[in-house]
Amino acid sequence: MINQSYKEMLSGKSIIRELSEYATARGKEIGYENVFDYSLGNPSVSCPSEYTQSVIDMYKSSNPMEIHGYSPSLGIEDVRIQVAASLNQRFGMHYEGKHIFMAIGAAGALAHAFRAVTEPGDEIVVFAPYFPEYYEYIRRTGAIMKVVAADTDTFQINFNEFEKVINEKTMAVLINTPNNPSGIVYSEETIKKLSQFLLEKEKEYGHDIFLISDEPYREIVFDNKACPYPSKYYHNTLSCYSFSKSLSLPGERIGYVAINPECTDADILAVIMGQISRGIGHNCPASTSQLAVAQVLDKTSDLGVYEENMNIIYDALIEMGFTVVRPGGTFYIFPKALEDDANIFCMKAKKYDLILVPADNFGCPGYFRMAYCIDTEKVKRSIPVFKKFVYEEYLCQNKNVK
Amino acid sequence: MINQSYKEMLSGKSIIRELSEYATARGKEIGYENVFDYSLGNPSVSCPSEYTQSVIDMYKSSNPMEIHGYSPSLGIEDVRIQVAASLNQRFGMHYEGKHIFMAIGAAGALAHAFRAVTEPGDEIVVFAPYFPEYYEYIRRTGAIMKVVAADTDTFQINFNEFEKVINEKTMAVLINTPNNPSGIVYSEETIKKLSQFLLEKEKEYGHDIFLISDEPYREIVFDNKACPYPSKYYHNTLSCYSFSKSLSLPGERIGYVAINPECTDADILAVIMGQISRGIGHNCPASTSQLAVAQVLDKTSDLGVYEENMNIIYDALIEMGFTVVRPGGTFYIFPKALEDDANIFCMKAKKYDLILVPADNFGCPGYFRMAYCIDTEKVKRSIPVFKKFVYEEYLCQNKNVK
Repeated sequence: MINQSYKEMLSGKSIIRELSEYATARGKEIGYENVFDYSLGNPSVSCPSEYTQSVIDMYKSSNPMEIHGYSPSLGIEDVRIQVAASLNQRFGMHYEGKHIFMAIGAAGALAHAFRAVTEPGDEIVVFAPYFPEYYEYIRRTGAIMKVVAADTDTFQINFNEFEKVINEKTMAVLINTPNNPSGIVYSEETIKKLSQFLLEKEKEYGHDIFLISDEPYREIVFDNKACPYPSKYYHNTLSCYSFSKSLSLPGERIGYVAINPECTDADILAVIMGQISRGIGHNCPASTSQLAVAQVLDKTSDLGVYEENMNIIYDALIEMGFTVVRPGGTFYIFPKALEDDANIFCMKAKKYDLILVPADNFGCPGYFRMAYCIDTEKVKRSIPVFKKFVYEEYLCQNKNVK
Repeated sequence: MINQSYKEMLSGKSIIRELSEYATARGKEIGYENVFDYSLGNPSVSCPSEYTQSVIDMYKSSNPMEIHGYSPSLGIEDVRIQVAASLNQRFGMHYEGKHIFMAIGAAGALAHAFRAVTEPGDEIVVFAPYFPEYYEYIRRTGAIMKVVAADTDTFQINFNEFEKVINEKTMAVLINTPNNPSGIVYSEETIKKLSQFLLEKEKEYGHDIFLISDEPYREIVFDNKACPYPSKYYHNTLSCYSFSKSLSLPGERIGYVAINPECTDADILAVIMGQISRGIGHNCPASTSQLAVAQVLDKTSDLGVYEENMNIIYDALIEMGFTVVRPGGTFYIFPKALEDDANIFCMKAKKYDLILVPADNFGCPGYFRMAYCIDTEKVKRSIPVFKKFVYEEYLCQNKNVK
């Protein structure tokens, strides 16, 4: 018989996907250039030309047997060594190849990290607001997701709330900085405090607590800053990375888990992840994708456009009177809606062909997410539409809106 | 804490991998050309040049945003439609795009097929000899693998034994034809009998029984024959395919599940598999791999070498007095060892740098597997070594060996 629990998931469609599909359909009616689609986090700039060239060169000059042969399930050894070297250079770490597990995007990386350090029934703590897929990712491992309420003033970690949620069953803590959906980058102070907090809890509970750090936006940071690298601050850290955003290669499904060399069982964790792969049909990313990204590990797409877009939107939101924390990175911004129910707010915006995502599923009701990975020209054109929407729907009723 | 059940798997290393690693290490000592390595099922011929060219053309002429964008988790729509059309033309099926789910190799395809049609605790029947990884693939879904003993005279299905194993809890039956490790192709008679048998059992038990058909060797068939397409004979069939062998692209990790349009819930099964992907971090194969294989769906590598190798080895084995069923396809042959314990037999062969895999893990003790996806020249050179091994180790003791 068809598996019922998966069948039941069909009715719980993702609001992001639903809105994105609406935007596409609406685009067919009125021209997609007239739909201000802030729904999907899909990179809007090309991969670096060096990536394209390196693939062409590889296909032209390599023996097909070598580039298309089975990759070990942990990843191609040379690629793992190169990833380790690149991380060591950038973040002052001491990874070796054995600490790198090549994975099918961040989703594949997280699927392995969760399973490696939890047993069914264990708890994994996440911080609101969070990427909604985390719920399914975690639930299907048999672990239980526990949510720490957001500090909506800063979207840094709310340690008072964290203290209420963490307990002896907490085996892992999941962070995502720079953050989807808030765009916030955890400060060094936050990361240090988190490390100290977890060390104390490890001692108190007498077991490891792993920090699983989901970092696909690591390279998209604004104001010429860098994102503090969490693994630098806490021993039991598994850093989950994807090249989807930094190299604009979401379709290639390639990323990795980097295992802190100081963490418990550091030397066998990648091998354990190889065993996990056997049970979930993962294997590894495409051999040619592995070989190709290894050629451009320290390059990124031209990511400046995201900061440009953010500044335009942030300034406009502030001008309109929105409550919003200025993002430090990513291509998301996370304002408070102009009425309590962000679903109604976003539904009203839809009438103006302004596609905004209400944040109930992100664990932060009353807020909405804008994914501004779209052309700057379109961002600019969207501002008057946004103002018209706010004016017509809220200005008369709400004095807080200028 | 580190997950114990995965950690325990580390001690149960795959015998195939162990022997393959031994062969590589031994090759470093005496030159790999002197190691007759029949351990691994890794294609030994290049992908078709059309594949390489189509990738180069795609990278040269396409917008990177289009070829590297997120693929839907069910696969790129056009690719799914093209796969359906190709199968329809070859096998007289009536697939539409919605019946095709693009997967990360056959392992990814099976991971979704198993989960889609079973609940934890359900039973999945496999036939010995079988690919050893099936055990982990199935166990990790929560389902239970039940084994039907081999008919070692023919390696077709042993229906008397099947009758003893099947029961009300049987929700799926897994076949693999052409078969790894036996090299046997199920005859049309076998497939028809299987279909009839399953139809009766569906009626008797009052529920669906899905046939999951693992077909990575579908195109490697000898004597100018074709492998009967199981889905043509039984409605509730999920055909799991990989391009690893037919196009010699094991590293690309690309395949699919083809859902028989007549099967229960045929129209939503691919969507359900999309939900399964969320839980196991699968997503889909690399977008560029999908687009590239779609250009060469009806091509194969030059697969004739496998038949040539098979004939040389089969004739030599018969000459040496082995009990062996002539393979109808794949690049495997599955003779009976010359003593009861095939492990000891293979250990003795190792002394001659002849790497053979004992079949205990394949559910068929006393037999061994040879993967003859190696150069024909090396196959030829291995025969005198094989004869020497048999002569020195067994001829004096065993009259059955000529």
